[in-house]
Amino acid sequence: MAKIPHRIILTEEQMPKQWYNLRADMKEQPDPMLNPATLKPIRTEELYPIFCEELAKQETDCTTHYFDIPEPVLDLYMTYRPSPLCRAYHLEKYLDTPAHIYYKFEGSNTSGSHKLNSAVAQAYYAKQQGLTSLTTETGAGQWGTALAEACAHFGLGLDVFMVKGSYNQKPYRKSVMQTFGANVIASPSDTTRVGRAILEMDPETTGSLGCAISEAIEKATTTPGCRYVLGSVLNQVLLHQSIIGLESKVAMELIGEYPDIVVGCAGGGSNLGGLIAPFMQDKLLGKANPHFIAVEPASCPSLTRGRYAYDFCDTGKVTPLARMYTLGSGFIPAPNHAGGLRYHGMSPVLSKLYHDGYLDEARSVEQTKVFEDAVLFSRLETVLPAPESAHAIHGAIQEAIRCREAGEKKTILFGLTGTGYFDMTAYTSYLEHTMTDYIPTDEDLQPGFDSLPQI
Amino acid sequence: MAKIPHRIILTEEQMPKQWYNLRADMKEQPDPMLNPATLKPIRTEELYPIFCEELAKQETDCTTHYFDIPEPVLDLYMTYRPSPLCRAYHLEKYLDTPAHIYYKFEGSNTSGSHKLNSAVAQAYYAKQQGLTSLTTETGAGQWGTALAEACAHFGLGLDVFMVKGSYNQKPYRKSVMQTFGANVIASPSDTTRVGRAILEMDPETTGSLGCAISEAIEKATTTPGCRYVLGSVLNQVLLHQSIIGLESKVAMELIGEYPDIVVGCAGGGSNLGGLIAPFMQDKLLGKANPHFIAVEPASCPSLTRGRYAYDFCDTGKVTPLARMYTLGSGFIPAPNHAGGLRYHGMSPVLSKLYHDGYLDEARSVEQTKVFEDAVLFSRLETVLPAPESAHAIHGAIQEAIRCREAGEKKTILFGLTGTGYFDMTAYTSYLEHTMTDYIPTDEDLQPGFDSLPQI
Repeated sequence: MAKIPHRIILTEEQMPKQWYNLRADMKEQPDPMLNPATLKPIRTEELYPIFCEELAKQETDCTTHYFDIPEPVLDLYMTYRPSPLCRAYHLEKYLDTPAHIYYKFEGSNTSGSHKLNSAVAQAYYAKQQGLTSLTTETGAGQWGTALAEACAHFGLGLDVFMVKGSYNQKPYRKSVMQTFGANVIASPSDTTRVGRAILEMDPETTGSLGCAISEAIEKATTTPGCRYVLGSVLNQVLLHQSIIGLESKVAMELIGEYPDIVVGCAGGGSNLGGLIAPFMQDKLLGKANPHFIAVEPASCPSLTRGRYAYDFCDTGKVTPLARMYTLGSGFIPAPNHAGGLRYHGMSPVLSKLYHDGYLDEARSVEQTKVFEDAVLFSRLETVLPAPESAHAIHGAIQEAIRCREAGEKKTILFGLTGTGYFDMTAYTSYLEHTMTDYIPTDEDLQPGFDSLPQI
Repeated sequence: MAKIPHRIILTEEQMPKQWYNLRADMKEQPDPMLNPATLKPIRTEELYPIFCEELAKQETDCTTHYFDIPEPVLDLYMTYRPSPLCRAYHLEKYLDTPAHIYYKFEGSNTSGSHKLNSAVAQAYYAKQQGLTSLTTETGAGQWGTALAEACAHFGLGLDVFMVKGSYNQKPYRKSVMQTFGANVIASPSDTTRVGRAILEMDPETTGSLGCAISEAIEKATTTPGCRYVLGSVLNQVLLHQSIIGLESKVAMELIGEYPDIVVGCAGGGSNLGGLIAPFMQDKLLGKANPHFIAVEPASCPSLTRGRYAYDFCDTGKVTPLARMYTLGSGFIPAPNHAGGLRYHGMSPVLSKLYHDGYLDEARSVEQTKVFEDAVLFSRLETVLPAPESAHAIHGAIQEAIRCREAGEKKTILFGLTGTGYFDMTAYTSYLEHTMTDYIPTDEDLQPGFDSLPQI
């Protein structure tokens, strides 16, 4: 048999033209979002003040299996997709493992990450509805960059509330968003009621995704022609990100492979949910039984140490309630360079699948170990990974070593969500040994759990 | 006919496995390099103290048409190559031009540019010869990053002399090189004799590529097991970079296109020479007549305002003499954000082709115009270009507009050499209107010309 190429890139014809809605194949559905005022399941129309209508419909649709990707979205996708499925030959050789290691590389676009997949979709639907601007939050800056790019393309205004820790650590991220015409605001800020309230309680806070979400929603709901968009956690985001897994599956079929193990980094779940989608479908339908592993930071361990409970999606408690693994919306994660994984909760779909045992395993890991593998990987495979992505690299390397020790020739697939070009401060602190690890004690986690709504 | 895809990416089988040596098809050869002491043509063996032997042979070989790409080089190439040939549909639509615009995108690797193509080759040959370390210079940081990556891969030590202007403007570039294990030194430095001499004359200098070259050569020739490598200008570099043009040509053949116009940015000539190589072959052999355009910065106009003369390749006057278009090795370019194009000379091969009229046209352009098109392009095509690459974008846009005005449906190919992730300081200064243009007067150029050797 011919050697499998280093990179498998589908043609435009081979690229899937529909998104896959994982919920439609789940026998047990995630619990519905609740209106926090009534504690009743939220109706689609109740979401219209926050989300544009088409996205609100996608958010609550648990029955439609596939959604056509609109033509203008496909047309922008094709400037950077299909993305390559890469065989990590050099890493395999270095690890001396019989495992086959594949990674789906989502970093080949200006935004530098998979976030663009949903940004393009969300900006398109907003434009279709005649909206004039959007608001959002960003942690590591990947989502904000992706959305800035999408908004520039479709001609929409954009306010980005950027977690203050990242805002200060990543000035160039800010510049990229500004290059695409976005207005970037450090969060918490004094431009919103909720931001001012948080600053009053803790003027020195470095912020969090949950807090930035609150500010962005307040701005969206108080500005005419404006809506809020979110880059993770939501069902609609997992839907759009299914393109990652769908392409991966087609590419693997072409080379006669199927993953025994699928590894993804987990913050809000956008990449993990998209990557595993079609393979999880196989599992739900009893067609295959891949082992799914979520890797999250030890400093923000929502799956491994959180509670499966109804909670607000934001710190300001203005969102609907979602049932998910959560550290509590009052949990403010310690400053951690892997900014994009600093979120108190986890996608309700993934939470449900984890709760029911379909998402097999979650691991939390300290960032110095993550960076060790990030540096190794970059030297072997010519990709400098984002710290978020490096969590998945770490998990895949653990599995490949296990395969070596057990003499098992398994096929490992992991998601390499983006590049680390804007994370050099973090790389430098790792290289200079000034990077520290933080594992919260149970006591550290208690205030977050205390903030959970009593339902 | 089916619509041409947004991106054409060759398979590994379709990828060329040999480099093409343009000199072998030039009826009139570039003038030979001279030993500055004897003024006689330099023999290959005389280059061995500077370059490793295989590269010295490639440097002086004017007759071999094709060189096999060694297996380990191919194996690393394939982690990021074949690179995509992209159809700029969104740009075409925006410009309302009948022209077809293609760009060969070389930014999809950690180094962020085409420079990796030659870095991998040069590091490989050095390792083969049993050398233990290399030295080099870098302007914008692209070459240094690429070489750091290649040296990390093959296990070689590396000292990078980085032009001081870039060193200060691009701290994260430095971090990337350090992540790959390189030792990065701001040039001019006090670690070399020539660096100390330049600093004595002008302690405030922001440096230049020519000066950094002098330092790197001094370090290489005074350190056992060490050689010098260069990312542009040299014949061997153009040879390795021919992979850009060779892939482009195969990809265009697959979709039934051939370029009427080929546009490249021009600093030392590494990208332009590689991009045009196989198309120039067609022109030299009378098979086709594409129009070649070099675009250089107005602040460092070696082709448009330089002299075709024998000159040193470095400021310290330690290199052999090459006949090329040059502003004089004593020319210190004004600080200019497009750092990679700040070099006083131009590849001798390209210089000869320009002098003889085969390289049809050279244009110089102010950087604010370049950045205007860079921002436009990034918003339309999801690629944030390096400032160097944006010179080519500017040239291609000028041609596409000309096609619209003339109603001509020409096919334009340009080289998009890399990404601008590390150039956000420059983008910010453009966006904040603090970026200025600099066009040297004839008087400004005179000291450079006065520094030319009297031959």
